[in-house]
Amino acid sequence: MNFTGVFFSITEIIGTIAFAVSGALLAIERRLDLFGVLFLSVITALGGGVIRDLIIGSIPPWAFTNPEYLALALFSGLATFVAVYIFRARFSVLKERLSQINNYFDALGLAAFSMVGAEVSLASFPGNWVLCLFLGMTTGIGGGILRDIMSREVPYVFKKHIYGVASLAGCGLYWVIWTLTRRNTLAALLGMAVVITIRVLATHFHWNLPRILLSESKE
Amino acid sequence: MNFTGVFFSITEIIGTIAFAVSGALLAIERRLDLFGVLFLSVITALGGGVIRDLIIGSIPPWAFTNPEYLALALFSGLATFVAVYIFRARFSVLKERLSQINNYFDALGLAAFSMVGAEVSLASFPGNWVLCLFLGMTTGIGGGILRDIMSREVPYVFKKHIYGVASLAGCGLYWVIWTLTRRNTLAALLGMAVVITIRVLATHFHWNLPRILLSESKE
Amino acid sequence: MNFTGVFFSITEIIGTIAFAVSGALLAIERRLDLFGVLFLSVITALGGGVIRDLIIGSIPPWAFTNPEYLALALFSGLATFVAVYIFRARFSVLKERLSQINNYFDALGLAAFSMVGAEVSLASFPGNWVLCLFLGMTTGIGGGILRDIMSREVPYVFKKHIYGVASLAGCGLYWVIWTLTRRNTLAALLGMAVVITIRVLATHFHWNLPRILLSESKE
Repeated sequence: MNFTGVFFSITEIIGTIAFAVSGALLAIERRLDLFGVLFLSVITALGGGVIRDLIIGSIPPWAFTNPEYLALALFSGLATFVAVYIFRARFSVLKERLSQINNYFDALGLAAFSMVGAEVSLASFPGNWVLCLFLGMTTGIGGGILRDIMSREVPYVFKKHIYGVASLAGCGLYWVIWTLTRRNTLAALLGMAVVITIRVLATHFHWNLPRILLSESKE
Repeated sequence: MNFTGVFFSITEIIGTIAFAVSGALLAIERRLDLFGVLFLSVITALGGGVIRDLIIGSIPPWAFTNPEYLALALFSGLATFVAVYIFRARFSVLKERLSQINNYFDALGLAAFSMVGAEVSLASFPGNWVLCLFLGMTTGIGGGILRDIMSREVPYVFKKHIYGVASLAGCGLYWVIWTLTRRNTLAALLGMAVVITIRVLATHFHWNLPRILLSESKE
Repeated sequence: MNFTGVFFSITEIIGTIAFAVSGALLAIERRLDLFGVLFLSVITALGGGVIRDLIIGSIPPWAFTNPEYLALALFSGLATFVAVYIFRARFSVLKERLSQINNYFDALGLAAFSMVGAEVSLASFPGNWVLCLFLGMTTGIGGGILRDIMSREVPYVFKKHIYGVASLAGCGLYWVIWTLTRRNTLAALLGMAVVITIRVLATHFHWNLPRILLSESKE
């Protein structure tokens, strides 16, 4: 494996951990038991990729043939559970800290997962830019949407910050560069840069997409 | 494309718009941002067909190879967002009006989508009437169920009016006529007539299926 | 069909009824109409198997080519609806009774469905123990998770009793015995025994997996 391969593997590993931790934290807040916590860790980390693989007909999904990522998600969820148990008296402080750190790792994960999704989509259906954008985004945000649905939350990505759009922008750039040059690595690096930049700026400056606040809205 | 083809394309277009508008309205009520509004518009309009295609193994799903319907759903969601923003001070009036108009278009969409689902199912698995009924219904109501799940609602079709049953009745008639005559167009036209008739009558006379109102029910 | 085949068919039939009844009861509590009640009965009984078949690419899913189980789920849901209607004045008593009986049938269903899932998974992908565990568990608990998501509940299996873990333990034993001996029936019988034993003991002694009760938890 060359430098590029190592680079992408590292970003995927970081993303898997960040996604699993976010699933575990929400599950713990919801008072789920250890099984529920680990289940949501795995769903958050691997769910987007599984949906992608079902849509492109890649059977069995990648997550089941590369169990080291499954193991990583389980371990991350377990470590979060233990950490929260130890510091349970000061959970809000711990959660605040973890979420702050996790936000940056999560941006890296969103970027890496989106690029993987775009790349896999183009490898299977080279000309289809609609699939490329949709599956890149699905790989990036699908796990989080499943996590929120299973926790009885309206998906977070529908409400706050430039999250889905960051993924779409990165996948769009990936598609443009790949179409022009057929260079996967270049396309993925620049696409990741776009996703991370948008996410970090959106977090820092509290950017949000427009929404309509009706007086009759039901929260 | 002959007259029949144009007729069905028009009903599908109207159905796509009606479903996308219903997704956008619910998303706006839920205070979702523009990304959430557009996402729910697309899911409501195209989600049922995607589930159908996954179940029959039609890869990639139709929605991704016919991006004009995706574009139509996005545009309908965006137009709804803009209209609601402009008339936000009188949202309940606007929503009432839109829902009234939308109800008839929605009946047309339910009818058209159900017939498409039944037809696709029989084309892939000719003898299987269970699949025909289930996939016709799934194409018709699947998008709405996904919309409601993602908005943290109990699916509307489980609670009010003769919605799923209208779709099933139309698909059943489609199956009978197709089995007897192998004439797709005739089967689809009569099936659509049944769906629309049931839906319009059910709305007008406030028909509902039986349900049990327990004193202990949790709403 | 030999004795073993009859034995497994009977456990699957009992499991289908138990799962459908649990779906119908929750739907009635949620004030769903008859369509919603039957839909949730079917989803609870057959949903786990459909997810499994989508993941291993078995198209169309088994549930659609064996409509007798679909009919059984529909009938069980309808019978529950009628029974609750007749005894609606004393619903909490009826529900208590039904749930108590159903709990044992449900354990049998969980055991049978988990073994079917493990067996189907190993038949398609012989060496993959990750798939075997995950798909056995998915076949066992997937329908209940769909039921809860569609009823706006946090999935029950994430919160109470040793449910998912019982399924995993049984599938793990299935995998070990099958790998060592290639004897499906022996593996399935011992796997079922493990699932049922864990479930019955967990219910009787109120075993639960650890969870963290934070003061800030949102229920």
